[in-house]
Amino acid sequence: MNYPFSSGVASLKPSAIREILKNSGDSIPLSAGNPAPDAFPVSDIARISGEVLSEEPILALQYGITEGYTPLIEEITKIAHNRYGVGNDNDSVIVVSGAQQVMSLLSQIFINNGDVVICEEPAFIGALNCFRSFGARLVGVPLESDGMNTDILEEKLRTEKNVKFIYTIPNFQNPAGSTMSFEKRKKIYELAKKYEVVVLEDNPYGDLRVSGESVPAIKSFDEDGIVVYSGSFSKIIAPGIRVGFTVAPKEIAAKMTVAKQTQDVHTPMLTQLIVYRWLKEGNLEPHIEKIRAIYRRKLNLMCDNMEKYLSPYLTFLRPEGGLFVWAKMNDDIDMLSFVRNASQAGVSVVPGNAFLTDISSPCSYIRLNFSTPTDEGIVEGIRLLAQTAEKMKG
Amino acid sequence: MNYPFSSGVASLKPSAIREILKNSGDSIPLSAGNPAPDAFPVSDIARISGEVLSEEPILALQYGITEGYTPLIEEITKIAHNRYGVGNDNDSVIVVSGAQQVMSLLSQIFINNGDVVICEEPAFIGALNCFRSFGARLVGVPLESDGMNTDILEEKLRTEKNVKFIYTIPNFQNPAGSTMSFEKRKKIYELAKKYEVVVLEDNPYGDLRVSGESVPAIKSFDEDGIVVYSGSFSKIIAPGIRVGFTVAPKEIAAKMTVAKQTQDVHTPMLTQLIVYRWLKEGNLEPHIEKIRAIYRRKLNLMCDNMEKYLSPYLTFLRPEGGLFVWAKMNDDIDMLSFVRNASQAGVSVVPGNAFLTDISSPCSYIRLNFSTPTDEGIVEGIRLLAQTAEKMKG
Repeated sequence: MNYPFSSGVASLKPSAIREILKNSGDSIPLSAGNPAPDAFPVSDIARISGEVLSEEPILALQYGITEGYTPLIEEITKIAHNRYGVGNDNDSVIVVSGAQQVMSLLSQIFINNGDVVICEEPAFIGALNCFRSFGARLVGVPLESDGMNTDILEEKLRTEKNVKFIYTIPNFQNPAGSTMSFEKRKKIYELAKKYEVVVLEDNPYGDLRVSGESVPAIKSFDEDGIVVYSGSFSKIIAPGIRVGFTVAPKEIAAKMTVAKQTQDVHTPMLTQLIVYRWLKEGNLEPHIEKIRAIYRRKLNLMCDNMEKYLSPYLTFLRPEGGLFVWAKMNDDIDMLSFVRNASQAGVSVVPGNAFLTDISSPCSYIRLNFSTPTDEGIVEGIRLLAQTAEKMKG
Repeated sequence: MNYPFSSGVASLKPSAIREILKNSGDSIPLSAGNPAPDAFPVSDIARISGEVLSEEPILALQYGITEGYTPLIEEITKIAHNRYGVGNDNDSVIVVSGAQQVMSLLSQIFINNGDVVICEEPAFIGALNCFRSFGARLVGVPLESDGMNTDILEEKLRTEKNVKFIYTIPNFQNPAGSTMSFEKRKKIYELAKKYEVVVLEDNPYGDLRVSGESVPAIKSFDEDGIVVYSGSFSKIIAPGIRVGFTVAPKEIAAKMTVAKQTQDVHTPMLTQLIVYRWLKEGNLEPHIEKIRAIYRRKLNLMCDNMEKYLSPYLTFLRPEGGLFVWAKMNDDIDMLSFVRNASQAGVSVVPGNAFLTDISSPCSYIRLNFSTPTDEGIVEGIRLLAQTAEKMKG
C-alpha cells in the first residue's frame, strides 16, 4: 500500500548522521548528548519514589490534569521566578513530558504547512526535525560567538512571510556551545516585538554553567506576551523521567494545553510527584552545585586535551558550560571523511552539517560531547581523533 | 499581541461540556472516564518500582530509544500476538505515552490541513479534538448497535477526497458502549483495502469485557499493511503511568517513531521498566480476571438501577464491557436542560452532542460512566437523575 504521508513528514530525510555513524556501536561516544549518569540523584529518587507509592499511590496512578500536578506547577512557578527571573502575571506554567514537547506543542498550535520558523544556523537537530515534520520551512540565521546575527535576523523578519516563531538556545547552544550576549538578547526581544513574532527560548543547559557570569533570560524582559520559555529537568535531575516545563503567555499556554491533551493527556503522575517532592525538599541548589563540579571537570578535561593534541587540525572556542564543544576542522582536512575515519578508528563525533537547515550545505565543523563518555573515554577519544587527523594529513 | 495560531487549533471551540459541567465540582461524577482505582495493582507497582530503582537505576533514569525499551517491546509483541491475534512480520510495535499518543502520531504523519478523517458518529472526544487540532476535516459515519453503518462508510470512501484514515473503537465504544460485529469488522477491512485507506483501530477497553464472547480485532485480518492497532495499559494497570503501545505496519511505524521523537523523545524509562517487569512476572491474566469482576459488578449495578428507576425517562442497551452506558432521553425531556438540571442536583453526566463531529447538531443522548464513582455513588447518582427527570416531566 502507498501511504499518503503529510508533506512535512514525507520530506524528512533519513538521518545523515545515522548513516555515517551506523557502525559506531562500540565507539567512544563523543557523538552523544546524554547527561553524565554520575550526576543523577539516584538514591533520592529511589527513596522518594517509594514514599510516593506508599503515601499517595492512587494520586500517582490515576489520571491527572493536562497542565500538570498543581503543587508542582506552583513549585516550578516559584523556581522560574526566583532562579531564572522568568514568568509574570501574564504567564502560565505547564508541566511537559520533557522540554522536547514544548517544541512540538508550539509547532502544533502555530504551524500551517509552509509557514516559516526562524532558527539559529547551526541549531539542535531535534528542534529542526520537529519543525520540519509539522510542515515548517526553516530559515536559518548565522550564529556568532555571541549569538544570532541580529542584522540578518531583522532582514529575515522584514522579508519572510508567515514567520510563526524564532527558535533559540541562548545558553551553551547545541551544537555551538556559545552563549548569547545580553545586548543580543535585548535586541532579539525588541525585534520580535517590532515584527510581532513569538520567541521560543529553549534553556535545557542554563544550569550547567562552569565558568563566567550568567546572563538574564530573554523571557525576563517579556512584558508583551512574546516569549515562550522552555525548561528541562533532564540535565538537572535525569532525562529518563521525561519532565520539563514551559512558562508561556496565558493565551499561548491555553492552546498548548489543548495540544498536550491530544498528545499524551498529561505527563505521568508518578514522575511528576517524584520531581515535586525532590524540589520541595530543597535539593535543587545543592544538587546543581554538585553536578557543576562534574561538568566542569569533564569540560576542562576535553578542552585541555583538545588544545594539547588537536590544535594542528582544528580550532574551537572553550564553552562556559553545557554539554558540547563545536570545532572547525582546518581547511586541509575534509570534515565528512574525518568523521567517517574517526568512526572506523573507534571514536564517534557528529558531522556539523547535521545541524544546518539544509544538511547538504558545505560544513567544516564537528560536535563533540564530554558528558556521556567517562573521563578515560574523553582522553582516549581525543587521542584517536588526533591519530585520525594525523593520518589524513600524512 | 495577536497570535497567528494554526487553522486547526484556531477552529477548536471551547468545550461545551466544560461549560455545562463547570459547577459540578462536588457532584457525583457519572461524567468522568477514570478507571476504578480499586482496580490498580498498587502493591505490585510499589514493589517493582523499588526493585527497578535499586537494581538498574541508570537504565531507569537515562535517555532511552524512541521506539521503547526493547525487552518491553518484545513482551508486548508476544502479548499482542497471543492474546489479541494482532501483529505479523510486516508490523512493528512502538511503546507510546498512553494510547492517546497513537492518535496524535498518526495525525502528525498523515494530516495536511483540510484532509479528511472518517470517524464513528458519535466518537471519543479526545480523538475528535486531536484530529481537528491537526487541521483534519471530520466526516462522521453513523454508529449502529453492531458498529459503523458500512453502506454509508463506503459512500464516504467513494466520494470524499484525501481521506487519511478511518478511526474506530470496535469494543465497548466510547461513548456508545457498543461492540462491532465480526461481519462489520471484515467489511470495514475490505473497504479500507479497496479504497486504500488506513484504519486506526483503538482498543483501550477490550479487556474489560464482562459478558458475551470476544470478537477478533480488525488488525487480526491485516495482511496488507492497512491497520494501525492502538493498545493501552491505562485500564489494565493504571492511567497515571501513561504507557500504551501500537502495532503498526513497519513503514507507518517508522514515521510514527520520527514523530514521537519530535513529541517526547521516548516514554519515561521508569514507567516502561515497571510495566515490563509487571508483565514479565505473569500478572496480566490474573489481574484482568480480578478487575473484570470489579467492572462487572459496577456495570450491572448501574444498569440494574437505570432499568429500575430511569425507564420512564430514557432507553439504553446494556453494554458487554467498557466504562460507559449511552442512553437516549425520551422525546419529552430536553437533553441539554436535563444535563444542566442534573448537574445542579448534584450528579454530572456528559451531553451526547459533545461526541459528534458537529457539536451543534441536535442530540438526545447522554453518556454515563460507572467506573469512577463508588458503588454508593452509582446508586445515589441514578436516584438523583430519576428525581431530576421526574421534576422536568411534572
